[in-house]
Amino acid sequence: MVISIIGLGLIGGSMARDLSSQMNVRVYGVDVSIVHQEQALALGLVHEIVDLNGAIAESDVIILAMPVNYVQTLLPTILDKVQDHTTVIDVGSTKAEICAVVADHPRRARYVAAHPLAGTEFSGPQAALRGLFNGKKNIICEPERSAADALDTATKLFHSLGMTTTHLSAEEHDKHLAYVSHLSHVSSFMLGLTVLDIEKDESQIFDLASTGFESTVRLAKSNPKTWSAIFSKNKTYLTEALQSYIDHLENFKQLISNNDVDTMEALMNHSNDIKRILKS
Amino acid sequence: MVISIIGLGLIGGSMARDLSSQMNVRVYGVDVSIVHQEQALALGLVHEIVDLNGAIAESDVIILAMPVNYVQTLLPTILDKVQDHTTVIDVGSTKAEICAVVADHPRRARYVAAHPLAGTEFSGPQAALRGLFNGKKNIICEPERSAADALDTATKLFHSLGMTTTHLSAEEHDKHLAYVSHLSHVSSFMLGLTVLDIEKDESQIFDLASTGFESTVRLAKSNPKTWSAIFSKNKTYLTEALQSYIDHLENFKQLISNNDVDTMEALMNHSNDIKRILKS
Repeated sequence: MVISIIGLGLIGGSMARDLSSQMNVRVYGVDVSIVHQEQALALGLVHEIVDLNGAIAESDVIILAMPVNYVQTLLPTILDKVQDHTTVIDVGSTKAEICAVVADHPRRARYVAAHPLAGTEFSGPQAALRGLFNGKKNIICEPERSAADALDTATKLFHSLGMTTTHLSAEEHDKHLAYVSHLSHVSSFMLGLTVLDIEKDESQIFDLASTGFESTVRLAKSNPKTWSAIFSKNKTYLTEALQSYIDHLENFKQLISNNDVDTMEALMNHSNDIKRILKS
Repeated sequence: MVISIIGLGLIGGSMARDLSSQMNVRVYGVDVSIVHQEQALALGLVHEIVDLNGAIAESDVIILAMPVNYVQTLLPTILDKVQDHTTVIDVGSTKAEICAVVADHPRRARYVAAHPLAGTEFSGPQAALRGLFNGKKNIICEPERSAADALDTATKLFHSLGMTTTHLSAEEHDKHLAYVSHLSHVSSFMLGLTVLDIEKDESQIFDLASTGFESTVRLAKSNPKTWSAIFSKNKTYLTEALQSYIDHLENFKQLISNNDVDTMEALMNHSNDIKRILKS
């Protein structure tokens, strides 16, 4: 089986690393960056670097693992050209706009809209990790729009990486991800900026940064191109989540100003409930 | 040497754990909670549970490790009663109001205002960790207001836990900590609340929470009483930091709404600079 992975960054590279060690799988890599091509080969992530047309002509499975704006542009073109038996999977972090752009494509059934929920704050082929997806969850959207064999191939592929797959509508996916992933990234990027702002005058401030700060600001190290595309493609739900977050922050600032310790504690007690959720 | 620790939670308990294993140190524990007293003894954190007056009468060092509002109330009373050679140290996360309340105390020189920069999101004696402070930084504020022997004792004590001590004014301490610690906690508590809000209607949302969310929301598990006191005592600097954070979030929300991908990327590239800081 030939699997081509287009985009050899953190996600594509990690998929390549695991898939290329499987029996009877040959992994082709496609990437616009020569540096990424060389790194992917040197790291043994892929068996071969090919160009896009080579990948389209020869692959049983094509995985799109680039920023979601490029997925949206490239996916229709790829569907135009793929062989009848080829399964095309994208692994982007937004799904509604991507699904919409191919909704009426005559070969929509060859496409599976997926989102394996895994990642780190690092990027590029050198960030690729063996086992990144193991034990994690994968979402497939609009499964009823994919051909049975394509859906089956995709589900087996994610299963082979150690993932369990569940189904969601593209809208539900984007709404939920706005809250449990995209909002966290905005929160962390803006926390980084806020603290860097004050650093201008206060160089010693970072001597004081402890593990709590490191944890909340970790995602601020993430790749700007990946995330600007996600934020932009999930604009409606994300700005709604952001507004709710800002409202909570405004309210809490007022409570601090008013020394309203009781209400602060009540809210923090409620927020503590996140323990229950992270455990389950 | 007798060291009494008042407040046997995460911080006091962890100090007790390390100090009680040192040669020639006898650690007394004081706590208003019977449950905490019993846990501290059962876990071997302290050699003995005593009452406050017993601690004051017999200790060479008294460490106040309770929420900062209680420190502020109790510290003057303790200074009224301590022996001439006793060193009194508080380890709270705010310093300006505590220092102010004893600024004119006749025995101010027996007091050392400290803040060992370490912790986790857990609380109580059972959260006490061996080596929690090892390799971390300790701040002492207003060192010039402490007697030379008291300052020396405190510095040696933190050194014995593996910490290096630096000096800051109480105002500088509170300002910097507002940005690199207290703001992170508000940010995380409110992120927790925001996501719990939407959960009401959307129970499955947490199936989608991945490691990025866990990292940014980790501090939302922290102790509400500890943190309401810190937020309240650092009101001025914290609300300033919060306003700056809210402004950044508002601005970014607008950029998302406008699909202004270039400016988003420029800001995220700047925020990436946090890498440099977390490394150093």
